[in-house]
Amino acid sequence: MSDLTSAARAESLDAADPLRAHRHRFVGADTGLVYFDGNSLGRPLVVSADRLHSFVVEEWGGRLIRGWDEGWFALPLTVGDELGRATLGAGPGQTVVGDSTTVLLYKLVRAALDHQVRADPARREIVVDSDNFPTDRYVVEGIAAERGCAVRWIEVDRAAGVSVEQVRAAVGPATAVVVLSHVAYRSGHLADAPGITAAVHEAGGLALWDLCHSVGAVPVALDEWGADLAVGCTYKYLNGGPGSPAFAYVAERWQAELTQPIQGWMGHADPFLMGPDYEPSVGIRRFLSGTPSVLAMQPLRDMLALVDEAGMDAVRAKSVALTSYAVELADALLADAGVRVASPRDAGRRGGHVTLTHPSMREVTARLWAEDVIPDYRDPEGLRIGLSPLSTSFAETRRGLLAVREVLAALS
Amino acid sequence: MSDLTSAARAESLDAADPLRAHRHRFVGADTGLVYFDGNSLGRPLVVSADRLHSFVVEEWGGRLIRGWDEGWFALPLTVGDELGRATLGAGPGQTVVGDSTTVLLYKLVRAALDHQVRADPARREIVVDSDNFPTDRYVVEGIAAERGCAVRWIEVDRAAGVSVEQVRAAVGPATAVVVLSHVAYRSGHLADAPGITAAVHEAGGLALWDLCHSVGAVPVALDEWGADLAVGCTYKYLNGGPGSPAFAYVAERWQAELTQPIQGWMGHADPFLMGPDYEPSVGIRRFLSGTPSVLAMQPLRDMLALVDEAGMDAVRAKSVALTSYAVELADALLADAGVRVASPRDAGRRGGHVTLTHPSMREVTARLWAEDVIPDYRDPEGLRIGLSPLSTSFAETRRGLLAVREVLAALS
Repeated sequence: MSDLTSAARAESLDAADPLRAHRHRFVGADTGLVYFDGNSLGRPLVVSADRLHSFVVEEWGGRLIRGWDEGWFALPLTVGDELGRATLGAGPGQTVVGDSTTVLLYKLVRAALDHQVRADPARREIVVDSDNFPTDRYVVEGIAAERGCAVRWIEVDRAAGVSVEQVRAAVGPATAVVVLSHVAYRSGHLADAPGITAAVHEAGGLALWDLCHSVGAVPVALDEWGADLAVGCTYKYLNGGPGSPAFAYVAERWQAELTQPIQGWMGHADPFLMGPDYEPSVGIRRFLSGTPSVLAMQPLRDMLALVDEAGMDAVRAKSVALTSYAVELADALLADAGVRVASPRDAGRRGGHVTLTHPSMREVTARLWAEDVIPDYRDPEGLRIGLSPLSTSFAETRRGLLAVREVLAALS
Repeated sequence: MSDLTSAARAESLDAADPLRAHRHRFVGADTGLVYFDGNSLGRPLVVSADRLHSFVVEEWGGRLIRGWDEGWFALPLTVGDELGRATLGAGPGQTVVGDSTTVLLYKLVRAALDHQVRADPARREIVVDSDNFPTDRYVVEGIAAERGCAVRWIEVDRAAGVSVEQVRAAVGPATAVVVLSHVAYRSGHLADAPGITAAVHEAGGLALWDLCHSVGAVPVALDEWGADLAVGCTYKYLNGGPGSPAFAYVAERWQAELTQPIQGWMGHADPFLMGPDYEPSVGIRRFLSGTPSVLAMQPLRDMLALVDEAGMDAVRAKSVALTSYAVELADALLADAGVRVASPRDAGRRGGHVTLTHPSMREVTARLWAEDVIPDYRDPEGLRIGLSPLSTSFAETRRGLLAVREVLAALS
């Protein structure tokens, strides 16, 4: 085996990794299991188990209903601010945590579209790329149908992802809102968010970014991009736990203009007045509806503290190093078996995962799982290798790619 | 002090309570604190703290993404079925857990209204009572405005609650859906759900029940009532924790007819296909949208197991005994200070809480909190005494009402 693929090289990369100590804070990171799916569900932090236990006994059980006055009520906004600052490049008062990504996406797309149509009835198009995450496409199609509006699809090359030019060609005087993913869930392609946002604005549209596959792995700069709206989940690189609450960002300049359709007590100007009519809150709280789970927000708080301690630049540097290493190993170990790297080779255009394609990848995934090597499979023929920067080592990455080689060899 | 209000009587009532042993399973139930707010946020079970700890370490941390295939994906339906069987009188396949009550209410009212308008464009009215819980009113008003429909308000006497006659007078050929609370959040009035459901059906409307203030305290029989739709929360008498996921019920006969507007991956006919178009799932799963919190559903599972062990009939018997005792004590201890029982005196028309009114109740509530007696306050002038059947004792109830008397005496 060449130096490039040697165990010694993986060990030296791990030894030189400034974030190496953090890995041991995650449950199970030191077991033999190779986890390549932190981009679907991040590992828990050890401290989150203890925090949940003490939350139940001390906060919920000890403070009971008083907990709402003592911090829980503000939590969607305080955790939102923390998330915005640590991972989104968002100033305070623009990020809120609650609901699922799907529900927040529905609320924000509705808010944007309804606003645009009110201002100019000709702005009735929602622009979305044809390879966007299914939920994004389903939500947008449903809204277009119910509002009598249209969807304009940008047909994208799955490996190349959506470009500024494609967006520029798709937007115009009919554009209400453009819904795109920052990192493509299939290929890991990283979009030129500032360039695309500017192109959307030139056409008079609003730019809504889905950050599910970037937040916590790729630095995001919503304020700097001039983004209008964003949503994302917290269970991938933010390790919030299965189904943990999502987040929404609404740029301050839009908060007074936009209203969302699900009018609940948490979004009311005076939630405890319980008055006769609904009046939306000033600020970001108007994008909340019902009561979000306080319990489900606890692990996220631990991970945000760790990301903040490590720093997003260092997290991105580790992410780039891991994905670059995975690409190198794929070329060296798997290319001769017909495996192709379907993700961008330019690290500057790549998110936190690498997709490898081969006609047998569905079967390969099943066999890898049986050996405690856990990537995931995405049509067509894609093995997705998610490399959660704070919990994945170079040695683990190498073991996983060697396992792919063995499984492919056994299948052929 | 008379025999009626004596400590000895409270003790003998506790000694004769067949559910008395269950109280000690709740965190903090044996401390001196008097908790009269289990109807807003139930106490945690001790076992839930341990379950969450082990969930993080073993299920989330140990199974990682594999957990979705091993039970998490089905959880909204399996916990829904358990909830339906143990507390709602609902056959399997009709109850789903996820989202907040507000979001589920939005989805079900939209589904019902859109269906009715499609079938008969003249059916454009949502009927709701004027004293329904604020979120219900806000959701309904928002939907009526966005769909170009109307709200018909039933003006109710806050102490008497909504009657069959009032509903009959309000419904007709314009009625699309009727949204009412089974137990009124202010007075605790228990509606005649089967009678009202029948009256709604006679007029061709759909009946949607908000069960937030009844589920887990008052037996519910959705299938027997012929109810069409229902929603409710799980953090009151079902002790799911602050902001725990809500539930929705859709009668089997409607599931193929109704579609909800928030089209997400969890509601898709084939969620893992991730295909180009949205096709709603067969059955109750179509009412889901995004990923619900698996973590936040864990405490609910513990409480459902306990409710099932105790049996809803025994829970209701204890609830009636506790609220009847509270009414007796209020008459004996507080009437001479001008306190009035604002809840129905007929236990058969009363839910799990008792509301006492007095011009000073806002101030009384604040002083009680300072003494670790925790009721809540609701306008106008109402002290709400929530008596969670499985975690509240007669002695605790007596201590709380004596404290109200002392505080009122100190204020006068």
